[in-house]
Amino acid sequence: MIIVMKPGARDSDIREVSGVLENAGLGVHISKGMERTIIGVIGDKRLLSSIPLELMQGVDKLVPIMESYKLAGRTFMPEPSVIDIKGVKIGGKELIMMAGPCAIESSEQIMAAARAVKKAGAKFLRGGAFKPRTSPYSFQGLEEEGLKMLKEAGEANELLTVTEVISEWSIEIASSYVDMFQIGARNSQNFHLLREVGRSGKPVLFKRGSATTIDEWLNAAEYIMSEGNYNVVLCERGIRTFETATRNTLDISCVPVVKENSHLPIIVDPSHAAGKTQYILALSRAAIAAGADGLIIEVHPSPKAALSDATQQLSPEAFSSLCKDIGKIAEIVGREFKNDSE
Amino acid sequence: MIIVMKPGARDSDIREVSGVLENAGLGVHISKGMERTIIGVIGDKRLLSSIPLELMQGVDKLVPIMESYKLAGRTFMPEPSVIDIKGVKIGGKELIMMAGPCAIESSEQIMAAARAVKKAGAKFLRGGAFKPRTSPYSFQGLEEEGLKMLKEAGEANELLTVTEVISEWSIEIASSYVDMFQIGARNSQNFHLLREVGRSGKPVLFKRGSATTIDEWLNAAEYIMSEGNYNVVLCERGIRTFETATRNTLDISCVPVVKENSHLPIIVDPSHAAGKTQYILALSRAAIAAGADGLIIEVHPSPKAALSDATQQLSPEAFSSLCKDIGKIAEIVGREFKNDSE
Amino acid sequence: MIIVMKPGARDSDIREVSGVLENAGLGVHISKGMERTIIGVIGDKRLLSSIPLELMQGVDKLVPIMESYKLAGRTFMPEPSVIDIKGVKIGGKELIMMAGPCAIESSEQIMAAARAVKKAGAKFLRGGAFKPRTSPYSFQGLEEEGLKMLKEAGEANELLTVTEVISEWSIEIASSYVDMFQIGARNSQNFHLLREVGRSGKPVLFKRGSATTIDEWLNAAEYIMSEGNYNVVLCERGIRTFETATRNTLDISCVPVVKENSHLPIIVDPSHAAGKTQYILALSRAAIAAGADGLIIEVHPSPKAALSDATQQLSPEAFSSLCKDIGKIAEIVGREFKNDSE
Amino acid sequence: MIIVMKPGARDSDIREVSGVLENAGLGVHISKGMERTIIGVIGDKRLLSSIPLELMQGVDKLVPIMESYKLAGRTFMPEPSVIDIKGVKIGGKELIMMAGPCAIESSEQIMAAARAVKKAGAKFLRGGAFKPRTSPYSFQGLEEEGLKMLKEAGEANELLTVTEVISEWSIEIASSYVDMFQIGARNSQNFHLLREVGRSGKPVLFKRGSATTIDEWLNAAEYIMSEGNYNVVLCERGIRTFETATRNTLDISCVPVVKENSHLPIIVDPSHAAGKTQYILALSRAAIAAGADGLIIEVHPSPKAALSDATQQLSPEAFSSLCKDIGKIAEIVGREFKNDSE
Repeated sequence: MIIVMKPGARDSDIREVSGVLENAGLGVHISKGMERTIIGVIGDKRLLSSIPLELMQGVDKLVPIMESYKLAGRTFMPEPSVIDIKGVKIGGKELIMMAGPCAIESSEQIMAAARAVKKAGAKFLRGGAFKPRTSPYSFQGLEEEGLKMLKEAGEANELLTVTEVISEWSIEIASSYVDMFQIGARNSQNFHLLREVGRSGKPVLFKRGSATTIDEWLNAAEYIMSEGNYNVVLCERGIRTFETATRNTLDISCVPVVKENSHLPIIVDPSHAAGKTQYILALSRAAIAAGADGLIIEVHPSPKAALSDATQQLSPEAFSSLCKDIGKIAEIVGREFKNDSE
Repeated sequence: MIIVMKPGARDSDIREVSGVLENAGLGVHISKGMERTIIGVIGDKRLLSSIPLELMQGVDKLVPIMESYKLAGRTFMPEPSVIDIKGVKIGGKELIMMAGPCAIESSEQIMAAARAVKKAGAKFLRGGAFKPRTSPYSFQGLEEEGLKMLKEAGEANELLTVTEVISEWSIEIASSYVDMFQIGARNSQNFHLLREVGRSGKPVLFKRGSATTIDEWLNAAEYIMSEGNYNVVLCERGIRTFETATRNTLDISCVPVVKENSHLPIIVDPSHAAGKTQYILALSRAAIAAGADGLIIEVHPSPKAALSDATQQLSPEAFSSLCKDIGKIAEIVGREFKNDSE
Repeated sequence: MIIVMKPGARDSDIREVSGVLENAGLGVHISKGMERTIIGVIGDKRLLSSIPLELMQGVDKLVPIMESYKLAGRTFMPEPSVIDIKGVKIGGKELIMMAGPCAIESSEQIMAAARAVKKAGAKFLRGGAFKPRTSPYSFQGLEEEGLKMLKEAGEANELLTVTEVISEWSIEIASSYVDMFQIGARNSQNFHLLREVGRSGKPVLFKRGSATTIDEWLNAAEYIMSEGNYNVVLCERGIRTFETATRNTLDISCVPVVKENSHLPIIVDPSHAAGKTQYILALSRAAIAAGADGLIIEVHPSPKAALSDATQQLSPEAFSSLCKDIGKIAEIVGREFKNDSE
Repeated sequence: MIIVMKPGARDSDIREVSGVLENAGLGVHISKGMERTIIGVIGDKRLLSSIPLELMQGVDKLVPIMESYKLAGRTFMPEPSVIDIKGVKIGGKELIMMAGPCAIESSEQIMAAARAVKKAGAKFLRGGAFKPRTSPYSFQGLEEEGLKMLKEAGEANELLTVTEVISEWSIEIASSYVDMFQIGARNSQNFHLLREVGRSGKPVLFKRGSATTIDEWLNAAEYIMSEGNYNVVLCERGIRTFETATRNTLDISCVPVVKENSHLPIIVDPSHAAGKTQYILALSRAAIAAGADGLIIEVHPSPKAALSDATQQLSPEAFSSLCKDIGKIAEIVGREFKNDSE
């Protein structure tokens, strides 16, 4: 970290700041410019978390030099992490597809979805049982009943399962039914919940918040990882901008940015980014071309009958065709997409 | 709601859509333009929540005409609500000031803060015991220990108390110590938590999320109110934009917009919006001038010693001077600010 | 367009609005709901441009149903436009690559750049002679001197040329030197300039503004096209959001959105979106995978010596390798990329 | 400026960077941390504008410490500037009101507007003759004919006049008719135009762009000032965000931020920020309370007949009442608002 002093800062101000830093066990490098003095701080800046340097006499501002996350960063783990969930590896050479309906609606619906996505090459079945909806008057999910259906459909089709959790209570219920927890965008800075899924020990699919910077996202991942749970898969699903032609703006650049700064795998959710089925194929191709480790896509056996987010769910046929496409792009970017079921 | 048909929609498409609406018990008005037909839907659009009209043949898009919240809206309650908390009224003629440190640090600190803010005219003492911090390595709050100190300081100075809750567990703990719960910006779409504070029956200070539109915010308030808890006070604290000169961008316009669309009181938090003490006075004046029902401001008896958000906490002297200012602006906009302690 | 009346609007209000519409030669459809009346307007809404309907008694709001651009839209021209510039076709099956340095610095530099990008398969040589820089103290371009060098380098290497124009004066100068004008992001709503390039008759590469919606962008294209110049190629180069990890946020979704709503070709500029060379390959792959008609990329024969935007210019080697990649992705998405020079 | 080296930078890298800086006549301070070395650069960073330090071996990133504008900054001129236009002073104790219709429509209209705004206390008459409209099919202004009407109305009512210019050509025409040029938000980074109004020598009302940071805005002001024209008055008119309840989001915080960093006066345009008349009073009060030096407000003698932006123009009565309000708030914040015409 660097401390920039104000133009008129006195020598005594500079000495006082230096003294505080040295008392905290940190090294100090003073550099006097023509108009300002800057003070370089050497050592672990977490030692400073309880010292309000910004308020000291003569201090203008603090400039962070290094990222504040540790466990999620490349410095901590220089090689990409591969998350192994019951033998399915996320972040390795193989691209992983997660798919299924937005909400679990019935045993028949989730079973039909499972069959379809398995056939197309998906490894994970997704389905919501606890739905955080913008309006309390919208459909809120089948809860435990739905999770049973999800588990059944997953087992019958040899698919792993992932579902969103939204509270301690839902973690407890979901724990015995699914293979992976999802943290949704609206809870991406619900630090209490992040700690809880961290403690659960179960792998976590961690969506970026719609107004969360990549840096804040990696810091939030730290809440999960600092509980000892390193099985975190990041998921970009669009950020909020002024553009309204799509539901969110897919931040495609975040794929290479995350790859540069973190060792965690990252997949992309084109369904929530686009909000409209007609854009999903283009965004899926783009995500894989940009280097994503996989996709999570909403697929409904009969989209017109869906109870939730009908406009963004693909039909089984559209999903199957998308998967074939992805397989071809995978090769060009040095990856592979296997369809075991074929 | 209006259904806009595609340019080439056939008569049979239009008949099919009309049929679906009529079956749902809704009225239908068809209007054929030169290039397109539009279908007006008459009745409660919640009857449509399970019908994916967007996917029907020939449909281009749905255009909502009315807001989707009910209890928070002016249609439901045309007169402004006044929330009465143990005799202190928020939303009436009198402006209400809430103040105190970002985090409760010690019995001495919160007691000193309480004395200072009471003297300046505050009616509520604020203080965080559960701190949602961006990095897990920052100070996280004193939890129940801190709440005891808050309660003691409040009682000793005849101040009501408000603290942020972040989970079912923290609601349970805080319940017996404070007069009002705060929902922070990061949990503004944590619908599970909103329902829980709704059920608690305690008054709620409900902060806007940093990427939440006013419409989504009022819909989220509906989660609290639909549990029967109508004692909701809204709080604007800045939204996330591309500008980085301030921590957030205070959306001052949201004050008159909320007043027009909702009957709920709204206060402003200039401390989190600005992120820097030197801007707090200007933003506080602006908020009251724009019609806010009060302010919540971070005040620390000794800002330089603060463990959390040091740069944005006012000294007791600065806060006292700010309150005097507010009193003068209050009169001009037809309000009043009483300092009982003088 | 639809006119939504206020809940308490009287019959006389509705009659008055209808009367105004009918006088303007428009058709009217009235639809009475339970709480509100809506009035559908049938006919060309441009007839209304001088009538302030929003201010009439009882009117709540106007809801546009159709886009306001005509010439740029799919309704006007249902098939994709192919822009032919001296035999090079943009928007057809072949992907088009434009490349060259940010700024023209010297005869040697632009000649070396031209040779390199030609060899890799580019069809257009780009180079800035009039640089709009954030600070007036940065390098501002070689102006006419630079354009001569650009023309020479283009001709020597059989490349078409494109350069940014920023005023009537620069249009006049550039007119005899280049094959295509570029309108930069900062001038994307400089309507006076748009009309001028429209009148020039020369093909226009039209960049999206950093805070311009797709709808506004297509409306702005209308300024060029309404002067009779239909040779417009759109260029997405990133929008401004809260994320600062990249210089701008590449709105990859805008590629399929533009393809759906407009017949104009669209290319992508990954250099200005990313702002850093290490992300350009990933974004280029993504753009082509998403359906873009080509790319414009900054290439400098010796990036470390560049006078402008050094961090985002690729070396000739990196560009050549990128082009090979693009060729492979092109095939998968049903396009082709030819390297005539090989 | 500070240069942050990569974790693995070698001593030879550091020596090379230092050498380059010293050759450019700059001082160097090296500070070795535990993980990284940082290099402080001492001297005028403009000496570095042609050196691509970011690309040198071992360099991670450059961190600017000081703002890049000079003439607009407080360092250059520590006291607030007072701009004197024919005896009317902007930036002094007195608040200045500019008002008038969005577009000049007729001699009668602008004359009626002038009488009304003069009576309420305005010092400037505004009126658009060159209108940059989003769609080319909207009313584009009366051009020179309109300017004659504006001048006449101004003189008849002892009001100074201000109008937007959009090109060299419009500057030339407007030059003999008005007392002040306005640069609109869409041209806020049209650097060519900024230089031209700089050279014109006429006072400039310089609006912030809808996606321009305060820092970029002050840098853009530098384009005007570096031509020797220091008579620049800044004008905040709202920025583009995700919120759509208002036309733009008024960044009220920018008033104290500009006051801290620049000596230039700043006024606020609540009409374009709100986009709806019902919010203008609240925003005007807030702007003055926050410390603005004045307001520019759209007033139309008969808003319902307006040809442009009808929903955001105040009636003479509403404007007169607003001015009385402003006068009262002025006193509380240590300013005054005089109505000479009373």
